[in-house]
Amino acid sequence: MLIEISFIPALLVILLVAAVGRLISLKTNQPEILGELVLGIIIGTFITFTPAAKGPVSELAEIGVLILLFSVGLDLELDRFKEMSIPASGAAFGGVVLPFVLGYFGGIFYGIPKEIALFVGASLVATSVGISASILHDSGKLNTRLGTLILDSAVIDDVIGILVLTVLLGFATTGHLPLADLFFLVAFSVLFFGLSLTLGISIFREISERIPFRRENLLLGGLVILLSFALIAERIGLAGIIGAFVAGLVLGQTQFSESITGPVSMIGKGFFIPIFFVTMGMEFQVGSFKSVGFFALVLVVLSVVGKIVGSGLGAKSFGFSGRESLATGVGMLPRAEVALIIANFGLRNNVIPSGIFSAIVVMVVVTTLITPPLLWRVLDWV
Amino acid sequence: MLIEISFIPALLVILLVAAVGRLISLKTNQPEILGELVLGIIIGTFITFTPAAKGPVSELAEIGVLILLFSVGLDLELDRFKEMSIPASGAAFGGVVLPFVLGYFGGIFYGIPKEIALFVGASLVATSVGISASILHDSGKLNTRLGTLILDSAVIDDVIGILVLTVLLGFATTGHLPLADLFFLVAFSVLFFGLSLTLGISIFREISERIPFRRENLLLGGLVILLSFALIAERIGLAGIIGAFVAGLVLGQTQFSESITGPVSMIGKGFFIPIFFVTMGMEFQVGSFKSVGFFALVLVVLSVVGKIVGSGLGAKSFGFSGRESLATGVGMLPRAEVALIIANFGLRNNVIPSGIFSAIVVMVVVTTLITPPLLWRVLDWV
Repeated sequence: MLIEISFIPALLVILLVAAVGRLISLKTNQPEILGELVLGIIIGTFITFTPAAKGPVSELAEIGVLILLFSVGLDLELDRFKEMSIPASGAAFGGVVLPFVLGYFGGIFYGIPKEIALFVGASLVATSVGISASILHDSGKLNTRLGTLILDSAVIDDVIGILVLTVLLGFATTGHLPLADLFFLVAFSVLFFGLSLTLGISIFREISERIPFRRENLLLGGLVILLSFALIAERIGLAGIIGAFVAGLVLGQTQFSESITGPVSMIGKGFFIPIFFVTMGMEFQVGSFKSVGFFALVLVVLSVVGKIVGSGLGAKSFGFSGRESLATGVGMLPRAEVALIIANFGLRNNVIPSGIFSAIVVMVVVTTLITPPLLWRVLDWV
Repeated sequence: MLIEISFIPALLVILLVAAVGRLISLKTNQPEILGELVLGIIIGTFITFTPAAKGPVSELAEIGVLILLFSVGLDLELDRFKEMSIPASGAAFGGVVLPFVLGYFGGIFYGIPKEIALFVGASLVATSVGISASILHDSGKLNTRLGTLILDSAVIDDVIGILVLTVLLGFATTGHLPLADLFFLVAFSVLFFGLSLTLGISIFREISERIPFRRENLLLGGLVILLSFALIAERIGLAGIIGAFVAGLVLGQTQFSESITGPVSMIGKGFFIPIFFVTMGMEFQVGSFKSVGFFALVLVVLSVVGKIVGSGLGAKSFGFSGRESLATGVGMLPRAEVALIIANFGLRNNVIPSGIFSAIVVMVVVTTLITPPLLWRVLDWV
């Protein structure tokens, strides 16, 4: 029996679940978000939100993931991030190509038509950067060589994932390759990163040296900049979280950096980010496990093998150790937003049947759930 | 021309308006919220939100006012609050009776039927505690004898306002006095305040001495307690903000007090509270001023005279100076939520015509707008 609750009770339940989930994680030496996710799944089988509460809750969750990426950007050492971008491209490339190929041929082998197999392959491509970013942040490994490599790869992989998505959607709707769309997406993305990390940094550095803000006004200003960058990124066709991350990178290079990090992480970890993870848990329908067949298991295996081998080999070829390469692959495991967008699009347009859709959802759930404990441990070995 | 924007752009606009509004207030030596309100009114003539964005934005605003009252409760000295509750009852009583009588007879004098005049009188009763609480907080006068008196009166007056509302709604819908409802409302209110400020304080004091929390987890826990108290208050029939205030009072008496105040005020002033004030400004329709006649002006005068004389005399009779009594009256000026609920109820049930409704809205706008600059200055004199 599902109990429907309105906004304020919903918020209360979510925060309570987050608090208890964290406590359990702490006592069992698991990463905090694992407790939030798992308890979210459990509570999601009893409780749902009224239609009027769903919108506000999911908007809060969206702010949560924006703030998460913003604070990761704030904390990251830009020079190391730039330096790592070349090996990271290798890891991202390997982690895109192999899962796509495995997914595609896995589908074909399983007797699925080619155009559906393309969707299956594409759904395995994009890493969901939030999970690993959060683990790296919490474990204090963000600014190690390895941590930066993982984050860097995940960001590049997200951009590649959106390129693949653009191609696939253009192809599915118009029947030919959306060359103009692709060109503008790449051009604007390069322009966005380039201008933000040069001119953007100079401008905000200048401002930060001239205007002293009180802390709460600084937070307000920081959120304004965060949202602006997220909107620009979305306008270009990238994900809002990429914009939020760049906004963090930019402000991290200014005088504001030190005084804004505390407040942002406070409102993030103390309110918005747990809403993101708990509701992510609540959205996973345990029922979907029952209806899916053997193909879901195949997809999970392919998604894990694809990333660990693909990204791992990519990292290894740039001179990272075996354990570091394994950690990179593990850090790239979680799929979420982009995979779900692709699956939803395919389902709505009758390109993929509901069985395949459910299998993709199961793959998302499993990769999201296994990453926190795995990455937490793998990072310890390195 | 009204531009409709979706959630993330809406949030960006609101925070930007808040930042600019604060800057202007600072430069012109006005209280921060005046800039937020006025700039909100201006921007509200150009911009509106999409239907999908309205819900999330107003929920964020609601969290804002809950956090505002919570942090006021946290900062308040409970002993002084208790000590002041007797003179505050006097000020609240005077500020309830006189405006009600003035509104009722003003309506009758103006040729309005009795049952409508009752609604008009009732709409002048309840102070909107948020505005004055915010000014007292920002001016650093919260814990003076006068500041506590004003806040204390506003809280008592809010409870009385809800009693009046209960009577009026019961009477309008059933035709007789809702004695049972009234009894339970009073009984549960007394129980809620009594238990919270005795047992509640003991329990949370005990917890706070035993469990050391990290700051962000403390914030999470504090918000859970805040929302629980708000829900209990709403269940009883009181306003959620009264619950939030009591939650703040309770936690303010524990070891948590010091470490939770910073984070709460940070997420409040840096995010949620400006959303409350800016959207409050945006909701005021400048157009409504055009359609209302002379009665709106009468209502504004009656509402101001009623509170300043009524609450002022109440305070004076308990030995406060003339200036302090004036400040008390000014602090009780703003009407908002309860007045709008009464007016809306009357309009929807065809008890009051739209002209009277608009006049009440104008009264709400004017009292809300004049209070910040007036109170800001009056507090300086005392």
